[in-house]
Amino acid sequence: MTDATGPGVAVVGYSFMGKAHSNAWRNVGAFFPDVPRPRRQVLVGRDPAALKTAADRYGWADTATDWRDVVTRDDVDVVDICTPGHLHAEIALAALEAGKHVLVEKPLANTVAESEALVAAAAAAAERGVVTMTGFNYRRVPALALARRMIAEGRIGTVRQVRASYLQDWLVDEAAPMTWRLRRESAGSGVLGDLGSHVVDQLHHLLGEPVVAASGHLRTFVPERAGDHGPEPVTVDDAAWATLETASGVVASVEVSRMATSRKNALQLEVYGTTGSLSFDLERLNELGVDDRALDPDGGVRRVLVTEATHPYLDAWWPPGHTLGWDSTFTSQAADFLTAVANRTQPSPSFADGLAVQRVLAAIEESAGRSGARVDVPAPAPTPQES
Amino acid sequence: MTDATGPGVAVVGYSFMGKAHSNAWRNVGAFFPDVPRPRRQVLVGRDPAALKTAADRYGWADTATDWRDVVTRDDVDVVDICTPGHLHAEIALAALEAGKHVLVEKPLANTVAESEALVAAAAAAAERGVVTMTGFNYRRVPALALARRMIAEGRIGTVRQVRASYLQDWLVDEAAPMTWRLRRESAGSGVLGDLGSHVVDQLHHLLGEPVVAASGHLRTFVPERAGDHGPEPVTVDDAAWATLETASGVVASVEVSRMATSRKNALQLEVYGTTGSLSFDLERLNELGVDDRALDPDGGVRRVLVTEATHPYLDAWWPPGHTLGWDSTFTSQAADFLTAVANRTQPSPSFADGLAVQRVLAAIEESAGRSGARVDVPAPAPTPQES
Amino acid sequence: MTDATGPGVAVVGYSFMGKAHSNAWRNVGAFFPDVPRPRRQVLVGRDPAALKTAADRYGWADTATDWRDVVTRDDVDVVDICTPGHLHAEIALAALEAGKHVLVEKPLANTVAESEALVAAAAAAAERGVVTMTGFNYRRVPALALARRMIAEGRIGTVRQVRASYLQDWLVDEAAPMTWRLRRESAGSGVLGDLGSHVVDQLHHLLGEPVVAASGHLRTFVPERAGDHGPEPVTVDDAAWATLETASGVVASVEVSRMATSRKNALQLEVYGTTGSLSFDLERLNELGVDDRALDPDGGVRRVLVTEATHPYLDAWWPPGHTLGWDSTFTSQAADFLTAVANRTQPSPSFADGLAVQRVLAAIEESAGRSGARVDVPAPAPTPQES
Amino acid sequence: MTDATGPGVAVVGYSFMGKAHSNAWRNVGAFFPDVPRPRRQVLVGRDPAALKTAADRYGWADTATDWRDVVTRDDVDVVDICTPGHLHAEIALAALEAGKHVLVEKPLANTVAESEALVAAAAAAAERGVVTMTGFNYRRVPALALARRMIAEGRIGTVRQVRASYLQDWLVDEAAPMTWRLRRESAGSGVLGDLGSHVVDQLHHLLGEPVVAASGHLRTFVPERAGDHGPEPVTVDDAAWATLETASGVVASVEVSRMATSRKNALQLEVYGTTGSLSFDLERLNELGVDDRALDPDGGVRRVLVTEATHPYLDAWWPPGHTLGWDSTFTSQAADFLTAVANRTQPSPSFADGLAVQRVLAAIEESAGRSGARVDVPAPAPTPQES
Repeated sequence: MTDATGPGVAVVGYSFMGKAHSNAWRNVGAFFPDVPRPRRQVLVGRDPAALKTAADRYGWADTATDWRDVVTRDDVDVVDICTPGHLHAEIALAALEAGKHVLVEKPLANTVAESEALVAAAAAAAERGVVTMTGFNYRRVPALALARRMIAEGRIGTVRQVRASYLQDWLVDEAAPMTWRLRRESAGSGVLGDLGSHVVDQLHHLLGEPVVAASGHLRTFVPERAGDHGPEPVTVDDAAWATLETASGVVASVEVSRMATSRKNALQLEVYGTTGSLSFDLERLNELGVDDRALDPDGGVRRVLVTEATHPYLDAWWPPGHTLGWDSTFTSQAADFLTAVANRTQPSPSFADGLAVQRVLAAIEESAGRSGARVDVPAPAPTPQES
Repeated sequence: MTDATGPGVAVVGYSFMGKAHSNAWRNVGAFFPDVPRPRRQVLVGRDPAALKTAADRYGWADTATDWRDVVTRDDVDVVDICTPGHLHAEIALAALEAGKHVLVEKPLANTVAESEALVAAAAAAAERGVVTMTGFNYRRVPALALARRMIAEGRIGTVRQVRASYLQDWLVDEAAPMTWRLRRESAGSGVLGDLGSHVVDQLHHLLGEPVVAASGHLRTFVPERAGDHGPEPVTVDDAAWATLETASGVVASVEVSRMATSRKNALQLEVYGTTGSLSFDLERLNELGVDDRALDPDGGVRRVLVTEATHPYLDAWWPPGHTLGWDSTFTSQAADFLTAVANRTQPSPSFADGLAVQRVLAAIEESAGRSGARVDVPAPAPTPQES
Repeated sequence: MTDATGPGVAVVGYSFMGKAHSNAWRNVGAFFPDVPRPRRQVLVGRDPAALKTAADRYGWADTATDWRDVVTRDDVDVVDICTPGHLHAEIALAALEAGKHVLVEKPLANTVAESEALVAAAAAAAERGVVTMTGFNYRRVPALALARRMIAEGRIGTVRQVRASYLQDWLVDEAAPMTWRLRRESAGSGVLGDLGSHVVDQLHHLLGEPVVAASGHLRTFVPERAGDHGPEPVTVDDAAWATLETASGVVASVEVSRMATSRKNALQLEVYGTTGSLSFDLERLNELGVDDRALDPDGGVRRVLVTEATHPYLDAWWPPGHTLGWDSTFTSQAADFLTAVANRTQPSPSFADGLAVQRVLAAIEESAGRSGARVDVPAPAPTPQES
Repeated sequence: MTDATGPGVAVVGYSFMGKAHSNAWRNVGAFFPDVPRPRRQVLVGRDPAALKTAADRYGWADTATDWRDVVTRDDVDVVDICTPGHLHAEIALAALEAGKHVLVEKPLANTVAESEALVAAAAAAAERGVVTMTGFNYRRVPALALARRMIAEGRIGTVRQVRASYLQDWLVDEAAPMTWRLRRESAGSGVLGDLGSHVVDQLHHLLGEPVVAASGHLRTFVPERAGDHGPEPVTVDDAAWATLETASGVVASVEVSRMATSRKNALQLEVYGTTGSLSFDLERLNELGVDDRALDPDGGVRRVLVTEATHPYLDAWWPPGHTLGWDSTFTSQAADFLTAVANRTQPSPSFADGLAVQRVLAAIEESAGRSGARVDVPAPAPTPQES
């Protein structure tokens, strides 16, 4: 038993995201029995000792210290990229070149140009049956998948406004030291790319249409932090604000911060429609606030515990009332990706969806450089998604 | 007994705000015994029959249908203006001219120019011992007064960000008919002036410093509504968004709407400082969320039920755990105003504070007309407040 | 104007409850215009100086230091008794004897025997058109009146279980001194009579049927406190627990305490029916939790902000979203009482309802004395109520 | 790699609990690297086809249809019993006889007599280095482990009262069919044994002392349900209530139900001490409500998101703000069990702890049969726990 006959997987990166993705590959078969069982083939990293420890712990058959050797291996069918963002493009392009299916952790890349190259390569590869996906894992939060479904079904009418934020507080302390995440050359941007990308992807996911214009502001509250060789400038944003407009005219306000004292992981979304509203907070990821006026003449926001078998993904997990953790989103994502690989279909979100997010973030940055004046987001819109 | 020996009061207006202010004048003596007891002298309105009914109900000694006759009456010391905004300036100027103390319901006026005239007249009148005040009643919500005190005491360190909104849903339905509130000539602006003014005043109140720059967007979601003679254009905003900056560099995001389905009266404020945070929702006005890291090593937001005798205003009301209603804010406001009248001091917020709010709203509107580009708010800053 | 032509009122007692009732008599006319406007005739108390101060503050025409002189005055039509419980019966009987309408603050009396005497006297007086009422003010919390209405309409099906508690924390500190409330001779009982009476009355109110059996436990956590002359025994309960059964078989669990650290005034009720549930917390008295499965196929508890004009009592108060305070319940209660006086009808709750509560409390105490064994509550059930 | 060198495990049972325990054995090594990595040797069940499917899905090396063949296998070191309760004792005794370490899913057994036999056998086996444990997984909820730690540290002073409940609603519908869980012969008891056992174990866990007396009530709201051959009597309780007392005099109220409409999995605990309080709800298992008066002079309940590395178990999981799911409790439990096996120590909770729970449940049932009169719980108390 336990003979996995599905695709061989290589994960590049073994720290936080590498751990989360490994967990998904290890567990996807137990919860999603209809999906081809992946073989956990290679874990890739630079430090051989640490890598070996991680591979043993997370259950990988082999390790490798150079991703170049891995993307062409015959026993590898899927390359899952969990490195820092500035390495995404190079690895993904090589893997696509080698005919591998590719899953790229969000954001797709640090720049629009890299993202465009990836979209082009993915389109070419798709003609050869190669599957690609951007790893915006929060599309697999059951409550957010349910929100998308409700909106699509018209349960809250026509959406007019979205109030969105993603607030954390791990940089509140000025004494927190310098890291690669606070340097533009390695991180691309600050909280805007890190958390803002999730928010923008959720707008696309929930509303099913692209953001077409942006007005934005950025702020670095602590301009200098202690580096290895003394004070060093922080060259990315600590917080960002934007007012966005979608193709149909929805207005979305966005606020993201790493300085919001007391908020640990608060991706908060409020969607206001003509006949109802939805609300969500990632710190309570098993819950969705629903006001559906057609059903409830008295109004009022219902707290729906999203653990019923009829809710998205839940038939794979536990009985009603038994809540899921943050890590479950990666397992469900792996299931969707493996299904797409088996069927040679396009999973959601695509590389094009990843590019669409980058274009919005770029527009926000450009607007911020022009003191908030509105900037149009270049077309094309994201390609149509499978349901 | 019950002989009131304090100032004679006239209230102009007898609908929603007239009822709320009448309630305050009727009850202030019972809760604030050290304040001179006001005489409820005259209620002013245009419809004699409806006015007489209201005066009888709310406990006024006399009525008058022309405010011009009232502002010069000898038995009137205080003129309290609860009319629609476009009448504020004319009445207040006449009352000041007549040497009366003046309380003007918010917003101070519909335009910056009118507000400036009122500030000038108030300054001149102050030299003759005349007291003036703008009726931003939410400064008297005990939880918000406590928030201001905590911020001033440094309980959350240096403030960096404020996340603010005021959301209602009474215009969600497209079939809701045209009203004077939706015409620019009578209302001045839409939700920006109505609810946005409260938000901006709270920023000034909580932070103790002025907003100096604004970037904004406005939207009218339902551009036409049924009027008495057929469809009529809506000429004010249904929703507004702004990113503001204060003198010390705090960034505040603001969202106000009359289209936020499920929100009834949700003035929500979140203040993020270097060592803590505060949060508030007017729909739960007896509560303040407090995270004070110096006290709580584990962190986490405390829900403080603001009903203790040590909390602002509470020694006047009920024992701990006995909550206050929305209307209590007007009674506490009346107490502060009467105290200032007795002592010839400047109550908070002043007319200058009302003007400061109008200038920020004007900057938001101007920015919205320039597609969101940042607009500086003209000085002077609000005058210093008494504690 | 302001000529009140309705009944003349005397309030006996001028401290906490006297203040709350005075507030109600002063404001009832402003909010309930169809009710005869009461004349605030006499405030009664023992300390002449303090009494005069209170009467002046709360707006009473006259004072008196002996209630015996007052209950027979011609200018007094209503006697409102706000004294400690051991004085209720004597004053009420004298007032009824004198033909006055009587409102008695809860609990009706300290003992079942006194309560029975009051019910008998009220029945005799009713034949002469005299109106009586027990002041369980929480029947006038709009959310609880709405809960009663929903249950009566079958919105949650047949009720099976109620989970009820009333938790406060003002006796947590062992150093808190002795008071008359902690002596059996003056207070009758401890938290059971004080807070437990509210809970039992709500069970009767919400379910519309009597409790018929009780099993109970009492506990005094701090058996001795500092009195004026050294340590003194506490002779009443600090906390009490009961399992109750109603006529139709509903099971209700009850927990009341003055030692529940962090709970200030938490009357919490959860009602579980065959097709839905309701939940309430007095610390958020403007909200009702509603799960009505017939309406909401997804289930989940809706937070209804009970401030709509269609909700009980709300058309008298403020527009939607403008919350009420604890004191509003007394004003609405006064309106219902005055209406009953005008119409010579029986207001709810009656003296018989007050007696029914006392009998349940007595059964709980008896059961506690028999180590929790079930005790039947003697009939008769409460008399039928007007709607 | 992935060579597990730790003990060989057999799990008996492959449905709900079998899935949850399999998940734990599969993942424990990834999160707890210092624990000997278990070999997933045998999955045991009766239906060969379904069993094979489950074993393949959950990653077991072998299957067996008779547990008797398994408990003596050389490649099996640990027997993990996930069957219905009436089979626990026989399997566990045989496994202990064979010298295997044994983990028994809660409740330990259906009767006190069986539990006593298991405790005796475990004591004898312990002398041979055999480790035993009862699977009350909620001891591994980080928030509840934190609560235990805080209480032990005196953070809330001396505990006086606990308010506890475990509410579900899956039997609300009268049309829900008969199952083995509703027959006394197979299930032992109804909700009392199923959910009440968790509540009582938490009391022991949090307070660190035994319940010594109980007063209880049981109710079957739906006495008959549709069986395979027509209507069939329900012979267990649908809901239960108890008032308990611990050795030191703490009073705990307990309410458990399968008929509490809208509650899905609501294990709710409120602990009231002399200087603070704690509160918890399993539907929000990543949160703990904390009021620690020594820290917070203003009081108020803090919502602590229990995801910090300093919180129990959390260093094994994810960074702050990344929440855990219900299933994580089994993984953490497996880690503690494997550590105990490696060190030959007694893990918590022991079989004796399981017996202690059964004795309390039996006392509640006995009291219910005597109309609620108090029943003493026989000693001995639970054996001392490791920290």
